[in-house]
Amino acid sequence: MLTRPPAAIDAATWREYLAFCAMPSDAIVPADIQRNAAWLVDACARRALDARLLANGDVPMVYAAWPRVRTELPTILFYAHFDAQPVVAEAWSQPDPWTPVLKERALDGTWRTIPAERLFDAQPDPEWRVFGRAAADDKGPIVMLLAALDALRSAGAEPCVNVKILLDSEEEQGSPSIAGVLARERALLAADAMVVNDGPMHASRRPTLVYGNRGVVTATLTVWGPARALHSGHYGNAVANPAERLAALIASLKDEDGRVRIPGYYDGVAIDGDARAMLDAVPDDEDVLTRELGVASLQRGVGATLQDALQYPSLNVRGLAAGATGRRAATIVPDRAVAEFDLRTIPEIEPERAPALIRDWLAAHGYLVLDRPPTDAERAAHERIATWTVRPGGVAARTAPGAAVGRWVRAALRDAFGGEPVAIRTMGGTVPTGEIAAQLGVPFTILPLANADDNQHTHDENLRVGNMLDGVRALVTLLTTPYPGYGRCASTSSA
Amino acid sequence: MLTRPPAAIDAATWREYLAFCAMPSDAIVPADIQRNAAWLVDACARRALDARLLANGDVPMVYAAWPRVRTELPTILFYAHFDAQPVVAEAWSQPDPWTPVLKERALDGTWRTIPAERLFDAQPDPEWRVFGRAAADDKGPIVMLLAALDALRSAGAEPCVNVKILLDSEEEQGSPSIAGVLARERALLAADAMVVNDGPMHASRRPTLVYGNRGVVTATLTVWGPARALHSGHYGNAVANPAERLAALIASLKDEDGRVRIPGYYDGVAIDGDARAMLDAVPDDEDVLTRELGVASLQRGVGATLQDALQYPSLNVRGLAAGATGRRAATIVPDRAVAEFDLRTIPEIEPERAPALIRDWLAAHGYLVLDRPPTDAERAAHERIATWTVRPGGVAARTAPGAAVGRWVRAALRDAFGGEPVAIRTMGGTVPTGEIAAQLGVPFTILPLANADDNQHTHDENLRVGNMLDGVRALVTLLTTPYPGYGRCASTSSA
Repeated sequence: MLTRPPAAIDAATWREYLAFCAMPSDAIVPADIQRNAAWLVDACARRALDARLLANGDVPMVYAAWPRVRTELPTILFYAHFDAQPVVAEAWSQPDPWTPVLKERALDGTWRTIPAERLFDAQPDPEWRVFGRAAADDKGPIVMLLAALDALRSAGAEPCVNVKILLDSEEEQGSPSIAGVLARERALLAADAMVVNDGPMHASRRPTLVYGNRGVVTATLTVWGPARALHSGHYGNAVANPAERLAALIASLKDEDGRVRIPGYYDGVAIDGDARAMLDAVPDDEDVLTRELGVASLQRGVGATLQDALQYPSLNVRGLAAGATGRRAATIVPDRAVAEFDLRTIPEIEPERAPALIRDWLAAHGYLVLDRPPTDAERAAHERIATWTVRPGGVAARTAPGAAVGRWVRAALRDAFGGEPVAIRTMGGTVPTGEIAAQLGVPFTILPLANADDNQHTHDENLRVGNMLDGVRALVTLLTTPYPGYGRCASTSSA
Repeated sequence: MLTRPPAAIDAATWREYLAFCAMPSDAIVPADIQRNAAWLVDACARRALDARLLANGDVPMVYAAWPRVRTELPTILFYAHFDAQPVVAEAWSQPDPWTPVLKERALDGTWRTIPAERLFDAQPDPEWRVFGRAAADDKGPIVMLLAALDALRSAGAEPCVNVKILLDSEEEQGSPSIAGVLARERALLAADAMVVNDGPMHASRRPTLVYGNRGVVTATLTVWGPARALHSGHYGNAVANPAERLAALIASLKDEDGRVRIPGYYDGVAIDGDARAMLDAVPDDEDVLTRELGVASLQRGVGATLQDALQYPSLNVRGLAAGATGRRAATIVPDRAVAEFDLRTIPEIEPERAPALIRDWLAAHGYLVLDRPPTDAERAAHERIATWTVRPGGVAARTAPGAAVGRWVRAALRDAFGGEPVAIRTMGGTVPTGEIAAQLGVPFTILPLANADDNQHTHDENLRVGNMLDGVRALVTLLTTPYPGYGRCASTSSA
């Protein structure tokens, strides 16, 4: 076993990380995904890992494995993803979200760009951050894993488990085809457990491990107005406005405290005594959190605390559009209004239920609910017409806290950083653990390594430099920690 | 007097119209406005009109006048505007909204492009249409007026009134500076009455004159969420979503039938017996109208009929935006949600009232209402924060139906087309009659010449070819009709 995991990573690794972040990897642009996948296969091959593309339409995934297999050891599949959320470039503080920049926080709290070369200092400031799309979600953790394997290699060490790596190309799209990839490559990807390197650590910055995650279903609600946008003077008051009707529907869905009003929406949520204890042990500081988020308080309609709220399904309006806003706004009654939803799901409730309940709710509010635009005949016959389309995403999953993989990760975090890690029962976000667990039949643990305030999914995404360093330390320690039930581990390469 | 107004216009005029429509004139692009204004001064000067630019910051207006002034005749100021609503180019059926195209309707109801040269036929089909931004609102009517003056000139005739023309550059922005232009140019623009060439004719296609128009106030409501957009998994349920809160506010404003719930919103609407008779005489066919608009019925919450509804102030959500929709939608809790409003006003109610009532309504719903984004301290102290900004536009105005200018227009329409024209008490849209009437102290009549289904303000705006022909006929007849109280008019140039 390595006696001291590295406190720094070398300039070549930082350069590799910056180059990786500088390659756009928008989940909806196949050419981006192909370029990143090829780059990753190269990066793995340079490290003498067994690496290859996994065919998946025009968005290939990447597989890699530590070359030496010791059949007496368990096999762990490390999962991460290299696709990224779309960017709204003009919202970012830097010229290009796909050109990462290093910043330090000035005394007034603002972030100032500093030369990226300062990362190559022997001891870069852990509070600096690399800003760029995918810096934290999830290219940083991929580079942490590669750097950890480099550290083993340069120390002449072997990992205490057989290491397989699966790098997803569609996580931000809900991994729609990962089940197919797993089914086709079941032998290649066979493992005893999975470790997911994705998501933010707890806001306390304490080491964190996670036993479950919510799933997600996305859906689009379109409320139809007149067949064409109308002059708001000539028709305002006389023709119903679809933006106003959409607003009324959205408003009907929740009460003042943010709790969904649809009967049965939360039926099946089960928080037993052990779960309650785990939730209550999470050291959330809601005063710090609300200040950081810029809100006066958290909503209490669903769960009394943040951790409680994440045990429930959610209903979130992630986008609204009708007519135009700002200087392009025209004085019209719009012809339609659109709301984009994401519905986070939990393991106790089948993911089909929430969208079906909402569909019924729309119908109960007098809407003809279609899965396509209305015909002229439908327009003539129905006062209220909506289109509701649903796209399944990742499914929710949870592993029993006592599973070996969880004990392994917990032991390593204790060893690397001292003290007990924060244990999260359900991460609010979604990773395709459910799909992978179903295909491979393995337990999993999520080991989040990015900072909690990483702005993932929005503008000014960033990875804290200290998280990169601690992440490598965590993974080196993990890879050199004996797996529960497998006795001591001779991790030096002389085996 | 001309014995027969022309049944057609010549190829040169059609070419001029197409060239005029081919010059972008987006109300928010000063360079567009300047180019159009210069073109208009040239077009007027070519006709030996007295023409000049009226200084107005970077969006000059245009003045023109028939050169011969007969002091014994009244002076009529013709008003039109050459600026246009913004375009959302991708919504149009043609490649470029600023490249006008001629279309005919196929048997299946769709519009098919045909060569624009067919306009130059001796008898173009009146059902053809020219599609392009500003084709109807309001470049078509400007060309009709120029063509009418050409017809007088080629017949060696003189108009029965002194003709002045004011071409506005900011009508689609609510003519924010027209009062200033009028104040500076009071002597130049002095007149006895005004005729406004803007707006759509009645849907029955019968000749139409209008005695009043609603005003407009635009406003923007921003509901603030967290300081940055948040991952909807990690915070969904726990952090209030500003898109959902905006929806609740919008929903609170109106009942199911589209009537504003704010007490006092409609106080002051007065429809006396004469007004009632005028409204009831409008030959609206709501079955035809709803079929054409693609809605099952009109809303009845404000006024039992379309004409009734237009006598009331409106509240219209013309735009909504939060996060993103479509393929760029990210799984976030947005940091803000925006609604754009237009509030049509009526002469009986001061335009400041509706936006002030809405502001109070927001406050009564627990919102801190600002006219700027919140500070960190305000975020920490207030659960609900909104920004409400209001921009005054054109004011509402109405002329007594018995005024001479109305009788003059009515007589001309009777003469040109036979039968009684449709008389509209209040046009739902807004033209700056109020500002002009206040500055010049003159009565006015609106003489709309575009087709009712012209798609003004939205995509696929168009002018029916027959409306161009009838519009020229109407204006030639008007210009050669004696003004009430001025006896017979010797309109031949031998005077």
